[in-house]
Amino acid sequence: MNEFELIEQLIQGFGDLTQADFISTGAGDDAAVLDLPADQQLVVSTDTLVPGVHFPTDTRSDLVGYRSIAINVSDLAAMGATPLGMTIALTIESLDGSRIKQFAQGIAIAAREFNVKILGGNLARGPLNISVTIHGNVPQGAALLRSQAQIGDDIWLTGTLGATRAYLAKPSNPQSSIETLLAQRDTSVVARYFLPHPRVEFASRIRDIAHGAIDVSDGLASELAHLTDASQCGASICLNRLPVWAGLDLLDVVGPDDSYELLFTAKRNDRQLVLERAHSTNTPVVVIGEVVAEQNVNYTLDQEQVYPRTGFDHFA
Amino acid sequence: MNEFELIEQLIQGFGDLTQADFISTGAGDDAAVLDLPADQQLVVSTDTLVPGVHFPTDTRSDLVGYRSIAINVSDLAAMGATPLGMTIALTIESLDGSRIKQFAQGIAIAAREFNVKILGGNLARGPLNISVTIHGNVPQGAALLRSQAQIGDDIWLTGTLGATRAYLAKPSNPQSSIETLLAQRDTSVVARYFLPHPRVEFASRIRDIAHGAIDVSDGLASELAHLTDASQCGASICLNRLPVWAGLDLLDVVGPDDSYELLFTAKRNDRQLVLERAHSTNTPVVVIGEVVAEQNVNYTLDQEQVYPRTGFDHFA
Repeated sequence: MNEFELIEQLIQGFGDLTQADFISTGAGDDAAVLDLPADQQLVVSTDTLVPGVHFPTDTRSDLVGYRSIAINVSDLAAMGATPLGMTIALTIESLDGSRIKQFAQGIAIAAREFNVKILGGNLARGPLNISVTIHGNVPQGAALLRSQAQIGDDIWLTGTLGATRAYLAKPSNPQSSIETLLAQRDTSVVARYFLPHPRVEFASRIRDIAHGAIDVSDGLASELAHLTDASQCGASICLNRLPVWAGLDLLDVVGPDDSYELLFTAKRNDRQLVLERAHSTNTPVVVIGEVVAEQNVNYTLDQEQVYPRTGFDHFA
Repeated sequence: MNEFELIEQLIQGFGDLTQADFISTGAGDDAAVLDLPADQQLVVSTDTLVPGVHFPTDTRSDLVGYRSIAINVSDLAAMGATPLGMTIALTIESLDGSRIKQFAQGIAIAAREFNVKILGGNLARGPLNISVTIHGNVPQGAALLRSQAQIGDDIWLTGTLGATRAYLAKPSNPQSSIETLLAQRDTSVVARYFLPHPRVEFASRIRDIAHGAIDVSDGLASELAHLTDASQCGASICLNRLPVWAGLDLLDVVGPDDSYELLFTAKRNDRQLVLERAHSTNTPVVVIGEVVAEQNVNYTLDQEQVYPRTGFDHFA
């Protein structure tokens, strides 16, 4: 089987995931041609995954495929955007058909879960690298930006922090199917680590009430600093309120962690509205602090100021 | 300097290349937010470059940057699309600021040449890999597809084939600046090899007269087979008419070659129109054959049927 035959088989295997009303020409030509609704803005983001950095080197290919899509969907969630479609650039050492097809199975499961179509891709030979570019849309002016946090806002967080740290303390390679692992995602840290759960549906439901938003993909402290910098404000965070996986130290858990949860701010008066929308989308949310005027981030634990270990640098 | 500071410096360095009327929110948030014209279709393509496959491993970073953009623009040219913007996913071994900035300089030169904006990107640590996703637009229904070649059409080719083969016969590392090399692109095979010349402006001018189109990025024979397969037709090619770099064997030159020229078909009656549009965009074009009903590709040299060495498989 050569490269072109394999690509043809992959496109066939994706079936209806390559087709939609808005896809005028899909995968298989030099580029995809799309019809986008006139009253919406297009939202575009790209994210790369590299073994040993974004997943353990021996991770099963379908888990890598799922993860590649989920972390890109998380960027759309951070904008309050609704997923449309994506391109997938896969670089792989050899034309291992069964491995590539397993990778595609994970992609297909994620694509169905998040309702994102496959617009096209690229297959190249080299050290494993997956770059996905994802496209979504939002109504005119409705995107959730980092720069829109307002002083006095509640700071909200979805889900539970610390999946990476908790997983690395007790690493194991899951044997179950993705379907089985998805059912355990809220209770098993292994399932949760391999299968991030971007809050994209919830995010699209709070477009009218959320102010600033960002996804917590590099750790809470790092991402919160991006949000407060962009919004020219500060934040006060109560660590006792953070939902974390069992056994984790609250002074560590705001540091490096790829949880792909949503951090957002909203008026205190909208607290009930946020909770209703969270309930309707089965999304755990909690207020972890407040946006303040003074431009730094202040953490408290048991009502005392603390200095957690923070930050993340892929090149450190 | 950490990752985020470097990204901030890169965005600053790109300056007006990150700004346009259609960019509502540009690089720096979780995703870009775009306003696209309502009467146009969006055209999206992604292409990856890996050292040792898509460029020699010791290629200067600004040449790699230029090439990354040019070969993606070539996919838009193959659709007759006008470039809008792109995301750039760079994976690199270490946070070598001067190397990354040199890479960005090459990107900036190409972005200005082809009038394509920088929407965002990603910086990851790992073996060198560049994946660009490019976006353009076309008027409703005007995209040039592989499937639209018609029996009796002329088959046209832009530029000169064999840059890869001619370069590899006498490889050398250029020392001149990109600006100097660009001025030599039509006369020096070294300049031409490192700096592909996608025919994107010409392609947008022949949207109304071209039928099938594809970019010759893997070699003429391979790409022509894709075109004729998609259009359910065949082709008859006269090798004597192929413009090739000096010293190349006509039986080799339709094989593996990354020339990024445009192959397209048009009605014989439109020959004069094609030549006029080519002249107005300073694009060399020539008729190399004809679309025929019988579904295979037939090559002649000195009026005799020949069987050139064909095909390309990245994994072969």
